[in-house]
Amino acid sequence: MNLILLFEDDFINGKTAVRLVGRRFEHVRDVLRAQVGGVLCVGLADGRIGGGTVTSINGECVEMDVVLSDNPPPPLDVRLVLALPRPIMLKRILRTITAMGVKKIILFHSSRVEKSYWKSPVLQPEIIREQLVLGLEQGRDTTLPEIRLCPRFKPFVEDDLPDMAKDTLQLVAHPGAMEACPEGGGKDGPVTLVVGPEGGFIPYELELLAGLGFIPIHLGKRILRVETAVTALLAKLFL
Amino acid sequence: MNLILLFEDDFINGKTAVRLVGRRFEHVRDVLRAQVGGVLCVGLADGRIGGGTVTSINGECVEMDVVLSDNPPPPLDVRLVLALPRPIMLKRILRTITAMGVKKIILFHSSRVEKSYWKSPVLQPEIIREQLVLGLEQGRDTTLPEIRLCPRFKPFVEDDLPDMAKDTLQLVAHPGAMEACPEGGGKDGPVTLVVGPEGGFIPYELELLAGLGFIPIHLGKRILRVETAVTALLAKLFL
Repeated sequence: MNLILLFEDDFINGKTAVRLVGRRFEHVRDVLRAQVGGVLCVGLADGRIGGGTVTSINGECVEMDVVLSDNPPPPLDVRLVLALPRPIMLKRILRTITAMGVKKIILFHSSRVEKSYWKSPVLQPEIIREQLVLGLEQGRDTTLPEIRLCPRFKPFVEDDLPDMAKDTLQLVAHPGAMEACPEGGGKDGPVTLVVGPEGGFIPYELELLAGLGFIPIHLGKRILRVETAVTALLAKLFL
Repeated sequence: MNLILLFEDDFINGKTAVRLVGRRFEHVRDVLRAQVGGVLCVGLADGRIGGGTVTSINGECVEMDVVLSDNPPPPLDVRLVLALPRPIMLKRILRTITAMGVKKIILFHSSRVEKSYWKSPVLQPEIIREQLVLGLEQGRDTTLPEIRLCPRFKPFVEDDLPDMAKDTLQLVAHPGAMEACPEGGGKDGPVTLVVGPEGGFIPYELELLAGLGFIPIHLGKRILRVETAVTALLAKLFL
């Protein structure tokens, strides 16, 4: 937790005094070992970043006086369109891409996604939100990403994706593609990046995407797990 | 498992017939659902890659006739010098960096590494080797990385690191550094890449490394977990 993410209902007195209980309080006490007078990095959800001066700490809660002076780091200008990963991987991927600054996440179905994944409790809004909050706390950011779930491949790709990807650089990651992922390819404008499931797209799916103008790109000869590939793609395009 | 890694003692008859039991057999039967006549991607540890034609499969083992015709993918020319991560992360990091093609891994101590990590069972050679094998199977590679453990910071950095890093591009990843990680920086020659622990290096450590010629580099304003940072650094430098 490199930033303590605050929400409106943490404020106890106008705009500056906050009281934290539970997980964030325990982190402040046990990991940061904060004392009265110490200043911690805080940020308001979907708002600014600043410092929180500890005004009291006891066995149950910590109180701080916060000053929110700075903008959060700039987001990555990407729509990340990701075939729904295995639930246990999904949690980690959501944290990772949120920490890296992705703000638009679309989870969609494809042939090699097991249908059972769509029934996973991990897709419940509160569990998704928990991962996003953890990602923001890691990346020192405050802007919660938007997430959209698209459990049917063809309607999504034919009806929604073209509008979504309009006027963006359209890329689909695929091992064995002819072109390499372009270095710094996300620095000149928005990108729509499609990433398939473990095992990849089936040919029909890749053809449909290519027909819409998505350029297949690779990351070298090796086959990487989805989590590794997504991190590597975002790094090459944006960092 | 995108490649089935074979070892000398899998061979039952000269140089082409292999018999697999246990984990690899179960994968062939249950995940790949191979049948007699099917051809699977195989590779010999520290050797070549090719195809294995299934000659028999029963409830206990699979037998294949293998032809090893191709070289494994080229390695990344990097010495990755990593402050020992938390054991549970270490396992995953070892798999990830092995899948990405790292062949020289040095795990070292620094101030913010908990001393207890050095006593973790994860550091037992057979558990480390298991992660490396899983990484090779993922990345379709055969060359096992070398791993070195350096549990004392100062003797390692003062006595061993200078020789190890000689005639390489010397980089140390550090949030807040002045320079960005150079795009494609690993494509022109060998790199020694030092990555600190969660929480970073203490100033003394960073000064010692800078004094040896290591250039501090960053990955942007965000603070990433070590696993994410290592993947992003390798992607920017080498992919």
